[in-house]
Amino acid sequence: MGDIAKLRRLIDGMRIEDNPQLVKQKSRDFYWYSPVLKRQLDHVTGDLVVSPKDEAEVVRLLAAAHECEVPVTTRGAGTGNYGQAMPLSGGVVLNMTELKGVTGVKPGSVTAGAGAIMFELDEETRATSGQEIRLHPSTYRTATIGGFIAGGSGGVGSINWGGLRDLGNIIRARVVTCEASPRVLDLTGDDLGKVAHAYGTNGVITEVELPLSAAYAWIDVLVGFDSLEAATRFADDLGHQDGILVKNLAVVSAPLPHDYFLRHQKFIRRDQSVVVVMLAPHAVGAFETFCARKRAAILFRSDKATAEELKGLPPAYELSWNHTTLRGLRVDPTITYLQVLYPYPNAVDLVAKMARIFGDEVPDHLEFVRFNGNVTCFGLPIVRFTTEERLEAIIKTFEDNGCPVFNPHRYTLEEGGMKQSDPVQLAFKGEADPKGLLNPGKMIAWEDPDFDLGSGKLYLFPGIPAAEQA
Amino acid sequence: MGDIAKLRRLIDGMRIEDNPQLVKQKSRDFYWYSPVLKRQLDHVTGDLVVSPKDEAEVVRLLAAAHECEVPVTTRGAGTGNYGQAMPLSGGVVLNMTELKGVTGVKPGSVTAGAGAIMFELDEETRATSGQEIRLHPSTYRTATIGGFIAGGSGGVGSINWGGLRDLGNIIRARVVTCEASPRVLDLTGDDLGKVAHAYGTNGVITEVELPLSAAYAWIDVLVGFDSLEAATRFADDLGHQDGILVKNLAVVSAPLPHDYFLRHQKFIRRDQSVVVVMLAPHAVGAFETFCARKRAAILFRSDKATAEELKGLPPAYELSWNHTTLRGLRVDPTITYLQVLYPYPNAVDLVAKMARIFGDEVPDHLEFVRFNGNVTCFGLPIVRFTTEERLEAIIKTFEDNGCPVFNPHRYTLEEGGMKQSDPVQLAFKGEADPKGLLNPGKMIAWEDPDFDLGSGKLYLFPGIPAAEQA
Repeated sequence: MGDIAKLRRLIDGMRIEDNPQLVKQKSRDFYWYSPVLKRQLDHVTGDLVVSPKDEAEVVRLLAAAHECEVPVTTRGAGTGNYGQAMPLSGGVVLNMTELKGVTGVKPGSVTAGAGAIMFELDEETRATSGQEIRLHPSTYRTATIGGFIAGGSGGVGSINWGGLRDLGNIIRARVVTCEASPRVLDLTGDDLGKVAHAYGTNGVITEVELPLSAAYAWIDVLVGFDSLEAATRFADDLGHQDGILVKNLAVVSAPLPHDYFLRHQKFIRRDQSVVVVMLAPHAVGAFETFCARKRAAILFRSDKATAEELKGLPPAYELSWNHTTLRGLRVDPTITYLQVLYPYPNAVDLVAKMARIFGDEVPDHLEFVRFNGNVTCFGLPIVRFTTEERLEAIIKTFEDNGCPVFNPHRYTLEEGGMKQSDPVQLAFKGEADPKGLLNPGKMIAWEDPDFDLGSGKLYLFPGIPAAEQA
Repeated sequence: MGDIAKLRRLIDGMRIEDNPQLVKQKSRDFYWYSPVLKRQLDHVTGDLVVSPKDEAEVVRLLAAAHECEVPVTTRGAGTGNYGQAMPLSGGVVLNMTELKGVTGVKPGSVTAGAGAIMFELDEETRATSGQEIRLHPSTYRTATIGGFIAGGSGGVGSINWGGLRDLGNIIRARVVTCEASPRVLDLTGDDLGKVAHAYGTNGVITEVELPLSAAYAWIDVLVGFDSLEAATRFADDLGHQDGILVKNLAVVSAPLPHDYFLRHQKFIRRDQSVVVVMLAPHAVGAFETFCARKRAAILFRSDKATAEELKGLPPAYELSWNHTTLRGLRVDPTITYLQVLYPYPNAVDLVAKMARIFGDEVPDHLEFVRFNGNVTCFGLPIVRFTTEERLEAIIKTFEDNGCPVFNPHRYTLEEGGMKQSDPVQLAFKGEADPKGLLNPGKMIAWEDPDFDLGSGKLYLFPGIPAAEQA
């Protein structure tokens, strides 16, 4: 655990919070989406929250942490879903939200502090240049850009730009190491892979430079279908329309839209599957023509709604990605979810097949994206949860049918993602965090190099008090 | 031919040119790219050129043409390649270049007169809003937007937005009919198909509304490869990079880049195949990383060139699309070209296969595009022309190998394109041009409804003086 008292002395003058209730509050994220993570991580808490006001204070904190051997878990707004920002071994929760300055807006790019909230960042780039960031999660209005890059993978905008892992979607990340004399490194090109989606295990991102795209007053549209298959086919066809600009394109299977989208419920029959679209204003005519050709019924259009109707309606991006799940959890706290890739070119057929296999136990929710240059979809299906064993069986069925699962019920980098260690991230941890203090327990390759990811065994980080992992 | 003397009286006060030399000059386009069209159309000329200053004068001219039964062939800048704007039956050449006003710039769209030159249109939208049109031909600096929509199909930008045929790439076209009392129609949605790529056979486009995208100071890059296959694979991979924004992506097979790109010749070895890229400035870092991963050699970058080097170098879009052919014709007037689709997902293999079959008789030139939502390429191969029979045999070989040819050696809509009549365009001609005066001879379905497009026979419009078609 290290010498926290000494650390406090070394960072004297920095903003510190140690009220246990408040520290615990800042020690969690949306891990409770998963009944597995809820069981494993519910008691996790840090010892204190440190909120540096600038990069110099981050450097000072990390030097102190290195000297005192105190763990440091970096946190943006805590909107991750996998315990990414939860301090498994206690110590410092590093709250980055004060580093939120937006600078250097140019045609096509912006520089922002890691703590900038994405919605606020976009308000600034929109006002000054008519631009916005390419990609954001459904937690756009609360999440930080640094947290998204350290813990996210894509979201709204991925239908045009792919994911954060794709070259060009991050231009530069500025990173502070956890050493006796912390270094401040500007990473670009292939070096970005060292810290992107590394959960802050091997450095603290203080600033990022990102590409921008043209900002529009996106129109929210709901289109209704009598079957999931019809909705999926419509969305897939729309995603392949090169001239119709959309920013997000989701499919939500009946009865979820009616049951979960309470504010929009009056527009939706319970047996309707719904396609949720964010549409460019200048694409409205083409979209209407496309719908007419497909005989598709538009249920709701934000540009046709009265001010009275719009009042209290959430934007389409808050019906999409993890917000679909969130709305479901508010209605029915017993559900959970999965994250599945339906690979190109079989997505539409695979979605139909999995729906036939699972029925209402796993009602699907799709997000169309570009993936390696092709239009396909991820599934974020709702799972009507019974037992962890059944959840594992559902995952196995998806994978046996050619749909890789990115397991959202795991808190480690390896188990949640590609089922393999990232040697680049591991090597950089050796350089940038030699004492292993940054976000302990999240990188199996560091904690337990001999752990066999192919064993099918769940990794249990020994740094979490053992009694609590029962 | 109709009563031209009467027509002149009816349009008194409008700008008219009847000097035979000048009329002949305005009666041609780039038909001479094709030895077949050159033989067929070389003598074609109109009787007079009329240059209306506004839409009211277009209406007046078309009413007069209807009354006097004088053919009217509409022309922008005459940069088409298939004789689209050539007056096969003489009569009026309708020069639209005076209708060039740019109005209504909004986020995502612009309205422009049909005669606006695309480069000038973009200069205006860039200056006022940081936007530019999505698509333009390589004749960007001289061609009109109305001519592009009436006679073009795609070009620079198609790697992002597909072609003009795709829903959303034209928002509105304003069209004047050729009737006793010409109607002025604003066509949107599916109705756009009536006049887009109809060569002005069924109405005169006076104004268009188009989508815009973000404008950038595109960087021109040449990348060199030791084989066409390596260049093709690199371009295909780059086209599938969702996060790297390019505006054009072409491959030119050795020895064409060295032999034809005379201003860039000093950068290129004769045995190098070259990938020509227009790259967004904010994608430079990602592109460099991509090239390093592929061990690809960058031969030229406009952002690294000195002012002295840049002097006199044409922009990358003037090395691409039909400008590749144009540069070839300047060096070797005996060549011609074809237009081929390499369908997804076999483009890379098909390109290699056709190169093996044809060798240096048909050195290839590829333009990567989005086509029905997938990244694939068109071929605009150079053909070392010998005889028309051999040209037909080359076309047949492409088609026998699954590569549809859009024959640029035909002046009719049907034979140049999809090998079938467009019933929507035909029906609209019946309404909008009941006397068949607009651009005679270009729509076989109108001129000769019984002509069998599947017969393999060449359609010869009897309205061209027969002796000349020998």
